[in-house]
Amino acid sequence: MIDLRSDTVTRPTAAMREAMAAAPVGDDVFGDDPTVFELEEQVADLLGKEAALFAPSGTMTNQLGVRVHCQPGDEFFCDSQCHIYYYEQGAYAQLWGVAAHPLPSSAGLPSIETLEAALRPENIHYPRTKVLCVENTHNRYGGAILPEADVVAACAWAHSVGLKTHLDGARLWNAAVATEGDWRANLRRQCDPFDTVSVCFSKGLGAPVGSALAGPAELIATARRVRKALGGGWRQAGIIAAGALYALQHQVTRLTQDHARATKLANAAQHTQGLSLLGDRCDTNLVVIEIDPAIGTAAEIAARLAHHGVLVSQPSPHRIRAVTHHDVNDADIDHVIESLVASLH
Amino acid sequence: MIDLRSDTVTRPTAAMREAMAAAPVGDDVFGDDPTVFELEEQVADLLGKEAALFAPSGTMTNQLGVRVHCQPGDEFFCDSQCHIYYYEQGAYAQLWGVAAHPLPSSAGLPSIETLEAALRPENIHYPRTKVLCVENTHNRYGGAILPEADVVAACAWAHSVGLKTHLDGARLWNAAVATEGDWRANLRRQCDPFDTVSVCFSKGLGAPVGSALAGPAELIATARRVRKALGGGWRQAGIIAAGALYALQHQVTRLTQDHARATKLANAAQHTQGLSLLGDRCDTNLVVIEIDPAIGTAAEIAARLAHHGVLVSQPSPHRIRAVTHHDVNDADIDHVIESLVASLH
Amino acid sequence: MIDLRSDTVTRPTAAMREAMAAAPVGDDVFGDDPTVFELEEQVADLLGKEAALFAPSGTMTNQLGVRVHCQPGDEFFCDSQCHIYYYEQGAYAQLWGVAAHPLPSSAGLPSIETLEAALRPENIHYPRTKVLCVENTHNRYGGAILPEADVVAACAWAHSVGLKTHLDGARLWNAAVATEGDWRANLRRQCDPFDTVSVCFSKGLGAPVGSALAGPAELIATARRVRKALGGGWRQAGIIAAGALYALQHQVTRLTQDHARATKLANAAQHTQGLSLLGDRCDTNLVVIEIDPAIGTAAEIAARLAHHGVLVSQPSPHRIRAVTHHDVNDADIDHVIESLVASLH
Amino acid sequence: MIDLRSDTVTRPTAAMREAMAAAPVGDDVFGDDPTVFELEEQVADLLGKEAALFAPSGTMTNQLGVRVHCQPGDEFFCDSQCHIYYYEQGAYAQLWGVAAHPLPSSAGLPSIETLEAALRPENIHYPRTKVLCVENTHNRYGGAILPEADVVAACAWAHSVGLKTHLDGARLWNAAVATEGDWRANLRRQCDPFDTVSVCFSKGLGAPVGSALAGPAELIATARRVRKALGGGWRQAGIIAAGALYALQHQVTRLTQDHARATKLANAAQHTQGLSLLGDRCDTNLVVIEIDPAIGTAAEIAARLAHHGVLVSQPSPHRIRAVTHHDVNDADIDHVIESLVASLH
Repeated sequence: MIDLRSDTVTRPTAAMREAMAAAPVGDDVFGDDPTVFELEEQVADLLGKEAALFAPSGTMTNQLGVRVHCQPGDEFFCDSQCHIYYYEQGAYAQLWGVAAHPLPSSAGLPSIETLEAALRPENIHYPRTKVLCVENTHNRYGGAILPEADVVAACAWAHSVGLKTHLDGARLWNAAVATEGDWRANLRRQCDPFDTVSVCFSKGLGAPVGSALAGPAELIATARRVRKALGGGWRQAGIIAAGALYALQHQVTRLTQDHARATKLANAAQHTQGLSLLGDRCDTNLVVIEIDPAIGTAAEIAARLAHHGVLVSQPSPHRIRAVTHHDVNDADIDHVIESLVASLH
Repeated sequence: MIDLRSDTVTRPTAAMREAMAAAPVGDDVFGDDPTVFELEEQVADLLGKEAALFAPSGTMTNQLGVRVHCQPGDEFFCDSQCHIYYYEQGAYAQLWGVAAHPLPSSAGLPSIETLEAALRPENIHYPRTKVLCVENTHNRYGGAILPEADVVAACAWAHSVGLKTHLDGARLWNAAVATEGDWRANLRRQCDPFDTVSVCFSKGLGAPVGSALAGPAELIATARRVRKALGGGWRQAGIIAAGALYALQHQVTRLTQDHARATKLANAAQHTQGLSLLGDRCDTNLVVIEIDPAIGTAAEIAARLAHHGVLVSQPSPHRIRAVTHHDVNDADIDHVIESLVASLH
Repeated sequence: MIDLRSDTVTRPTAAMREAMAAAPVGDDVFGDDPTVFELEEQVADLLGKEAALFAPSGTMTNQLGVRVHCQPGDEFFCDSQCHIYYYEQGAYAQLWGVAAHPLPSSAGLPSIETLEAALRPENIHYPRTKVLCVENTHNRYGGAILPEADVVAACAWAHSVGLKTHLDGARLWNAAVATEGDWRANLRRQCDPFDTVSVCFSKGLGAPVGSALAGPAELIATARRVRKALGGGWRQAGIIAAGALYALQHQVTRLTQDHARATKLANAAQHTQGLSLLGDRCDTNLVVIEIDPAIGTAAEIAARLAHHGVLVSQPSPHRIRAVTHHDVNDADIDHVIESLVASLH
Repeated sequence: MIDLRSDTVTRPTAAMREAMAAAPVGDDVFGDDPTVFELEEQVADLLGKEAALFAPSGTMTNQLGVRVHCQPGDEFFCDSQCHIYYYEQGAYAQLWGVAAHPLPSSAGLPSIETLEAALRPENIHYPRTKVLCVENTHNRYGGAILPEADVVAACAWAHSVGLKTHLDGARLWNAAVATEGDWRANLRRQCDPFDTVSVCFSKGLGAPVGSALAGPAELIATARRVRKALGGGWRQAGIIAAGALYALQHQVTRLTQDHARATKLANAAQHTQGLSLLGDRCDTNLVVIEIDPAIGTAAEIAARLAHHGVLVSQPSPHRIRAVTHHDVNDADIDHVIESLVASLH
C-alpha cells in the first residue's frame, strides 16, 4: 500500500533505529536524561527560544501552549480551521476550562480587521482573551505557508493589545524548507513573532514519536509541571529523543523531495477534469483535492484508490487529502496519479 | 434617567412587592418551599415540560441546560452571536469542560446546510456534538423572533442525528406575545421542539430576580443537583419566586406595550439620516441601531444620549441598543426619539 | 412541627418582610443596586475587610473563596469534617479543578504539627498548597467555637509558609455572640487572621437567602467576576439584601437565646441514659447527640421524634443533630426534651 | 553512583535496545502499530482483562482509570498515602473535576469499617462515590503487598454497594513474583477483584517508557479516546512497546533478585542502632528506613550517602527510601549497607 493518509505514518529508517538504540539515557522525570536535554537544547536554539520541552505528541505541546497562557475563564483566538480547535477533541475546554474563539479567515490567518472586531473589552460577561494561536503550515488549508508579513502583523497586533502568541508549527519544518533561503534562518524568523512554538518530529521529519514546545524558560517550566499531571512524564525518553535528534540532523532538507512530489501530484489533479486543488495551490507536502460532486464523494474516490493500493484521508465529504513523506518515492507518486485518474471513472 | 440599557433594570412594582412579602416560604434546599414549587409547576406547565427548576439567573439556567446534555469532551452547536456563547464568560468551558462550536447564521439560526456541514462523525480527534442551542428571541439580532418553521426544522434535524436541543428563551415571553394568537399556545408550541428550555422572569416580565430551566424530570433532577454545586441552592427562595409568579399572572401581556414603543423608536431611527436598524426590523422590545461611522461611534452617541438623560448599551463599536420595558412609558420614548435626533449633531 | 433540622429553615418575620418590600433596588449585575451596596459595605466593615460580595448561598461564597486563592493544580488544607470538603459536592474539584487536602483534627482545627507534616515542597508530583480553610463555628463538631489562640497560631503558621487563609464563617455570628465581650469586636477579631471570610445571613440570622464573601478588594473583584460565570449574578438583589440588612440590625444578639435553648437541650441529653453529647460540649446553637447503639440508630430515633412532631437531622448513623433558631421557643425546647426521652423507649 | 532513588531509573539493556530497534511499527493513532497491539493483547491476557491500552506513564493510566469510572461531581475512595492521591499532582481534580476521598489505613488498604463509615447516601450535598482505588504493592508503605483476602473483601464490599474498583499496579509484578506460586497465576488472581488495572513497564521491569491500563473493552475504548485529548496519542509507539514486550518475556522473574537484595538491606537497617524499618517489613524491592531524629534528618543522611556514591529518596523528613532494581547488583548492596552505617556518624 502507498499510504498518503498523513506524514505521521513514516517509519524510522534503519539508521535512525540504530541511533535510537545507541542513545545514552536517564530518568527524564528526575531531569536526568542527557539525550532529552540535548534535543531540548537543540530545539530551543533552532527555534530561537529560551527553552524547550519534549513531549509525546503535538496535541500535548499545543495544549500545553494554550495552558501556559490561559486559565479557566480565558479564551484564545484562532482560525476556525486550525488543528488546536478542529482536531484536538476540545482539549482546551475539556482539560483546562478554557474557551476557544474561532474566527473566519481566507487561508488560515484571520485578518487584523477580523481580530480587532473580535477583541472585547474587560467585562464580566466575556472570557478574557489571552492568546492568538496560529498554525503554519496550515493543515486544513492544504499545507499552506502563511504569508510572513501577515503573520508578523497579526502577532504585532496581538502583542499591542496584550495578547500572547502561540504557533502550532507541527509542519513548520516544511515551511522553513519551502521558503527561499537557509532553512535554519527561515525557521527562526518564522518563530520570531511567537511567544511559544510547538513543533513535531513524527510528521515529515520521520521520527517515530515526539513533539516539543519552545518558549520562555518560565513558561516551559510551567509546561513541564503540567506535562506531569497529563501523564506525559516519561522515564528513559532519550531513546525516543534520539530519533528526533537524528531527524533534525539528517531528514530536514529532504522535505524538498516531499514538496516536489506533492507538487507533481497537485499539478496532475489540477489538470484532471472534475478535480481541483483547494486554494489552487500546493505549498508543501499536503495535497487537498476537491472533487466535483458529479463525479462522486470523497468516500467513493478514496475507496477506489484503496483498490489501487493508495490510501488517502477525507478531510470533508468532497475533499481527499494526499500527503507525501519519507516513505513515498517518485514511482509511488506516478502510481498515485494513474490511480487517481483511474478512480474517477 | 430613562434607562434603556436592558429590560433587566425593571424594578418590582408595589403590588409585586406586596405579593412577595406575603409569600409562604420554606427551605428550598430541603425541598420545602411551597411558593417555589408552585412556580416550578406553573412554568413546567406553561412551557409544556415535565419539570422545572428555579434558579438565580438565566446564565445559570442556560449553563445547567448545557451541563445536563454534555460532559467534558463534548461540544454544542450554537449561533456565533448567541448569549450562551457570547455573554456567559465561557462558563460552558470554565465550569463544565465543554467546548462550543459556534456557527454563522443570517439572523440567529444556523441553516440546516451549515449544521450538516459542521456535524462530524465519531472520531478521537473531535469532541462529540451533543446539543443544539438556540436563542429566541435573539438578543444580538435585535430581539428577532426566529421563524418557527426554521426552528422546527433545525430541531428535527438535530434529533434525527442524535443531538438534544436547548432553547435560551430568556425573552421567549416576548416572542409568544408578539406572535399572532394566544400567547400560552404560542409559548408551548415554541418550546415544543426543545428538550430543555430556559426562561427569565427578571427581564421583560419585571420580576426582580430569577430564571427557570424546564425539561424532562430526570434532567431537571440532575440540574437541581448541579445547581447546588454552583451555589445556587437558596433557602426561603419562595419570597423571590413570588415575584415571578406575580409577573406570570399580571405582566405577560403588557409586553405588547413594550413592543409598540420599541417599534415607534425603531421607525424613528430608520427614518433618521445616518441611522439604520439592524436587520431592518424590530420584532419585539430590543432596538439595535447601526450608526453611520461618519456620524460617530456608539460610545459618542451613547455619551450624548446620557446628557439627555437616556441610557443605552453598545453591543458593538457602531451599534447602540435601546430596550423598552415596564419602567418606560410613551412620554419617555418621545423624549428618547428627540434625544437621539439631537445626539447626531 | 418543631423543625430542628437546621437554622436554615427560619422564615422571615413580618418586620423583615416589610423591610424587604420597601427596599430601594437597581440592577446589581450593572452595579446599580443601592441596598446590595449598603449590605456589602456593612459586611466588609463588620468583618474588618476591604470589600464584600453578596451571593445566593454559603456554598457559593465558600467556593469563591477557594477559587480566588487557587488554580487548577493547586490544593487547599482543611479539616476533614469541614463543610467545604464534606457538604459542598466536591465543587472545588468539580468547578475549579482544585484538590482538597483534608487533615484530621481533634475538634475542627488541624494542629500545627499536622499542618507542618502535610506541607510538601514544590515538586511536580504534588499540587501546590495555596490556602488553609477553617470553619468557625464548626458544623460537624456540634457548633464548636474554635479556640481563638489556636486559630491565630494556625493562620500565622499558614501565612509564614506562604499560604492564604479562608474562614467559612457560616455561623461566625454565633461564635461572636457566644464569646464574652462586644460581639462586633469579637467578630472583627475572629476574622482578623483570615484573608477571606464567608458569612451567611440565612442561618441563625434568619434572613431568607444570602451569604457574603469578604476580603481584599482585588480578590472580591475576581469573585464578582466568577460569580457571574456561576450564574450568581442577580438583578434587583437589593430586595433580598434588605432581609440580610434587617437581620444584621435586629437579629444578631438574639442568637444568645438560641444558645441558651441549645444548652438546655444539651444538658438534658447529657443526663439521659444512652445519650451523650458530641465532644461533651454545646458552645452555640447546634446540639449533636450520640446515641448508644444499644438504644437504636439515628434513623430510628429521628423517626420516633417525628412522631412527636420534632424534626432533627442525622449527620451520621448514630448521631442526631438538633439546631435551635429564631422559629423555636422555650416551650418548643421543653417539648423536644420530653419527646427525646420518650423516643428512647 | 549507585542510584536507589527509584526503580524508574533502570536503563534498557543491550538486548532490549536491540529488540526495540527491530520492532515492526505503524501509526498507533490510526490503530496500525502491530507491536503496540501485541503488547496490549499480552497485557490484557496476563491481567485477565478484555482489553488494554498502552500509554506513556503510570500517572496517565491511573488517571485514565479514574476518568473512565468518574465524572465531575463524583469522588473516589482511596488510601490517603496512595500514589494517585499523593503523587499525581491532583490530576483527578485538575483534569477531570473529580474529588478524592482519602481514607486512613494501617498498611495501605482502608478497612471495611472505614469504607462503610465513609460511604454516604445519594444527597445533593455529597459527591457521588464511584470507585475504590487500591495500590499494590504500596509505594509509601514500603512496597508492601496487600493481604489478598483483605483486597478481595474490600473489592467485594465495593461492588456490593455499586462502586467500581481500580488497581494501581505500578509494581504489581513485584507482588506477583514475591507471592508463592506461579507468578502468572498470582498476577491474574491479584487483578481479579478489579474492574481496571494499571501496570508499569518502566519500573522494576526495566523498560524505558510505558504503562498500560487494562479492563473491559468499552472502558478501554473510552480511555483510548481520552488519551488522545491528553496528548498521549503517539505514532510509531511500537518501538517503545517492544521494550515492554521484551521486559515481559525476560525480566519479570528476575525481580526476585531485587527482592533478595532489598531484604538484605532491610535486615541490615533493622539491626542498626537508630534505624528501623517502616512497618517492620520489606515485602518486595522498596526499603523505607525510619531514622531516629537523634541521629539526623533524612536530608542529612541522604547527603552523607551521596558522598559515598549512594542515591536515595526522602519520602518524608525522617525517612529514606532505597529501591533495588535491575541496575543494582549484590556488590552494590554491600556497599550501600556499609555506606549507610558509615553515614550515621
